[in-house]
Amino acid sequence: MSLDRWERQAQKGRDILNNSIPKQWLLPESQLALATTKNVIDFPEQSGLLSELEMLITELSATELVAEMGKGKLTAEEVVVAFLKRAVLGQQLLNFATEFLADEAIARAQELDKHYKQTGQLVGPLHGVPISVKEHIGFKNKTCNTGYVAYIDKVATEDAHLLRLLANAGAVFHVRTNQPQSLMHLCCSNNITGTTLNPHNRTLTPGGSSGGEGASMGFKCAPLGIGTDIGGSIRCPAAFCGGYGFRPTAMRNPMAGIQVACIGQETIHGVVGPMAGSSIEDLELFQKAVLDQEPWDDETSLMPVPWKTVTPTRDVTIAIMWDDGYVRPHPPVTRALRLAKEKLLAAGIKVVDWEPYEHQRGWDIISTLYYPDGAALQRQMLRESGEPARPLTEWAFSYAHPTPLTHAEAWTLQYERDLYRDEYHALLKSRGVDFIISPAYPAAAAVMGESHYWNYTAIWNMTDMPCAVFPSGLTVDPTLDALTEQDKKYVPRNEVDEREWNKYQGPWRYEGAPIALQIAGRHFKDEETLAAAKLVEEIIKDGKKSSKL
Amino acid sequence: MSLDRWERQAQKGRDILNNSIPKQWLLPESQLALATTKNVIDFPEQSGLLSELEMLITELSATELVAEMGKGKLTAEEVVVAFLKRAVLGQQLLNFATEFLADEAIARAQELDKHYKQTGQLVGPLHGVPISVKEHIGFKNKTCNTGYVAYIDKVATEDAHLLRLLANAGAVFHVRTNQPQSLMHLCCSNNITGTTLNPHNRTLTPGGSSGGEGASMGFKCAPLGIGTDIGGSIRCPAAFCGGYGFRPTAMRNPMAGIQVACIGQETIHGVVGPMAGSSIEDLELFQKAVLDQEPWDDETSLMPVPWKTVTPTRDVTIAIMWDDGYVRPHPPVTRALRLAKEKLLAAGIKVVDWEPYEHQRGWDIISTLYYPDGAALQRQMLRESGEPARPLTEWAFSYAHPTPLTHAEAWTLQYERDLYRDEYHALLKSRGVDFIISPAYPAAAAVMGESHYWNYTAIWNMTDMPCAVFPSGLTVDPTLDALTEQDKKYVPRNEVDEREWNKYQGPWRYEGAPIALQIAGRHFKDEETLAAAKLVEEIIKDGKKSSKL
Repeated sequence: MSLDRWERQAQKGRDILNNSIPKQWLLPESQLALATTKNVIDFPEQSGLLSELEMLITELSATELVAEMGKGKLTAEEVVVAFLKRAVLGQQLLNFATEFLADEAIARAQELDKHYKQTGQLVGPLHGVPISVKEHIGFKNKTCNTGYVAYIDKVATEDAHLLRLLANAGAVFHVRTNQPQSLMHLCCSNNITGTTLNPHNRTLTPGGSSGGEGASMGFKCAPLGIGTDIGGSIRCPAAFCGGYGFRPTAMRNPMAGIQVACIGQETIHGVVGPMAGSSIEDLELFQKAVLDQEPWDDETSLMPVPWKTVTPTRDVTIAIMWDDGYVRPHPPVTRALRLAKEKLLAAGIKVVDWEPYEHQRGWDIISTLYYPDGAALQRQMLRESGEPARPLTEWAFSYAHPTPLTHAEAWTLQYERDLYRDEYHALLKSRGVDFIISPAYPAAAAVMGESHYWNYTAIWNMTDMPCAVFPSGLTVDPTLDALTEQDKKYVPRNEVDEREWNKYQGPWRYEGAPIALQIAGRHFKDEETLAAAKLVEEIIKDGKKSSKL
Repeated sequence: MSLDRWERQAQKGRDILNNSIPKQWLLPESQLALATTKNVIDFPEQSGLLSELEMLITELSATELVAEMGKGKLTAEEVVVAFLKRAVLGQQLLNFATEFLADEAIARAQELDKHYKQTGQLVGPLHGVPISVKEHIGFKNKTCNTGYVAYIDKVATEDAHLLRLLANAGAVFHVRTNQPQSLMHLCCSNNITGTTLNPHNRTLTPGGSSGGEGASMGFKCAPLGIGTDIGGSIRCPAAFCGGYGFRPTAMRNPMAGIQVACIGQETIHGVVGPMAGSSIEDLELFQKAVLDQEPWDDETSLMPVPWKTVTPTRDVTIAIMWDDGYVRPHPPVTRALRLAKEKLLAAGIKVVDWEPYEHQRGWDIISTLYYPDGAALQRQMLRESGEPARPLTEWAFSYAHPTPLTHAEAWTLQYERDLYRDEYHALLKSRGVDFIISPAYPAAAAVMGESHYWNYTAIWNMTDMPCAVFPSGLTVDPTLDALTEQDKKYVPRNEVDEREWNKYQGPWRYEGAPIALQIAGRHFKDEETLAAAKLVEEIIKDGKKSSKL
């Protein structure tokens, strides 16, 4: 049987991955969790692959790791080896990677250790922090397929700007991670390296499009990761996998060297941002390390806005958005919002309800602007290789206008996009609301292949509001989240609402899924949003910091 | 003979203008300068229309006027009446206006005076400053034709954001000014209110597209004006008319409510900025008054970058660009550059020559991006009314690709635009150059209908560098600027060079034209660029401040 050309090309991508896996840390099949085991979150401990110290290292936050390395208590090499081992295990269980960078990462860690030994100083604020990197962020001399078989031979000529800045700050890149075909699923499957699974329940998707990163954060294959987000692609996988993610205001973080099929497209600005396994503090660490290097002085599309240090304040008004007026969240998600409201009120924070502002209008604009060319370029990418479209790729393309918009039509929509953003901003001010807590998705996570509804995250792309996602500390509970009699009587408001509501059926479909919260701040208030997220998380979790130190 | 429908529509525009002219200040034809008089700069003095005090008022800068009003030595009403009288004369000689706002302006000035009388305070940093406004900047309940007959009945539903901010700061709007058909000529003629003339020589154009503003500044119909610029439209008329103009970095000044046919187009960002009749200080006054109001908190497309107060420093490197490598400037322009170099060197400033960086490549990108739709929307505007295209409208449309670009083609060009800007910025840094002084145009001014070459200004739109234009103090000189034997032997490098060089023939064609200089600073360094412009002007003019106080 001969393979189609696209299959031979796709095999190249799998070869890159397979050849890169450090074989010495592979567990024999027989020692792995059974394929039927859904939740593998505790498997690193059970596996015996990692030493006690390595287990401890991989449970620390980036901030804690840097502090320990600064005191000389850990070496960068120990740290990266620990995360590499955990990542190899993660790969065996979750298929989250596209390429391991073990040799380079270890060599880099050794250099950092040498520097520390010689000078007694860390090289920068991210000294020795292993960072996993979504595949379409370009690495010099490495292929960058962006989820398309057509790009399998495409080699980046230099490191993405962001990677250079992170490297300056001392970061170590040890693994590149998976993404969906076209980069436009809230799921993570492609025709090259396949489908990534959710570590909390392997029948669930880790979300997407930064789904490899989601799994990496959830399984703690790295303390920090890098995702990109044009409709929820950082926040959705952070939410589904129990991790942390931050979508900055557009044009703050450096985008140069991030590969996409439609490079130069500006109808909707994608952003790049940090994901973290264990703390909001790490998201701030990342942002500060990057923006302190004034990336706008090289990448002149960026806004020259330095990163401010902001201390959380309780003197804020936080609104809760229970429902976006179009799709009702599932019971577990509503339970987490109730917890947030209760705890915030008990802590003396001013909490109000948020009446959503024409979210459907926002969605109509943004979804059309994703593909002003009627997805012609994206379809061309599929035709070029001959690979078949994945179902969720077709789903995303279905947002496009059936024919390319004229330029004038696209300009009108761009004008309407700006108008909507201005209106939303004015509304926050007139209602006196600083932050909005909302679901990140109608469900705690999506069953594989079912991530259809984007607008709990995409709406904040539309309004270009910075937002963070963090775990509420709750997980889907078979008892607490059972459908009530009242739930069963719910009459959906429209077909989409019906489709999403009917997916719930009961907590059993989402067993073990962490329940996240999303907090959005006003346009440009990135620092304040992270500070508020930190405060809210602390309050919701009763100030219990989860550090293992 | 019956008029075509478009002519009847155009007549409406002329009626608005004619009905708005305060008749009491019109000079009888017999007392006006002869139609054959080219230079009318001194006519206000000669006309006897203005009192001695009014003459003095109209020669003061905005900064000086505010100071005098703050001391109670002038009233806002005196000030606006003086400028209105001068503007009416300007209209009779130059046809620079589209609508006078005399009653509103006087009523507003009286309010300001009342406020001052009651409180002893000015209402803001622009208290009582008359500002002329380019027509396409929307005024509530007034028509806004943007140079197209098709828009003659289009009424703005609210004041442009910028106007609201300037009004908050105390500004008085007394006259709206002319612009070319399509807004895309470096000249100023349309089928509605016709053609505006240059006050220094009425056979020359005042430049464009903010040509009415150019004439307004040159003739001192207002101390401050507002222009817009996507390829030179603030700087060219400032240069041609002996005035001052500032093109800020894009996305700093508020754009909402500025009417253009292609609203929402972002391939090249137009900007709005100040023009002034007598000082760079006034450009700063305007910028600070606007940005101190944090317009980004309402218009969320803007960058949240406050206006900094910067003191000029001599510790800078200034490069002189003698030639853009494509079109040789005329002898008077080169003479002004030589003066600048000499004076700056004598003042101990570090001066180097600037080797232009692929300006033709820059032009190829920007000129295609002006009309990614092949100028389809603009042509549609002409078809809608049936008005004929003006020759320079056809000229501008000829930049367009013959057919609309696909979205993917436009994205590629947008990517190349950003790349070019990054490269230019990197080059400034690697060469250690802070500012570039260059011509604003190959000639001191253009003979009516001949403004063809945009790239001495458009290149800085392409690189999004802030730039100011100011008069060198020189004018075209019959002796000093005669073609030398060497000039006569010049062999043009290309057809465009030949076309532009052949226009010179000799100083007689440009009699009386002021010679301007353009100074461009690094991307985002708006404040530094204005500070440097102030320093350079002072040095070139031997510190002679021209104040009449």
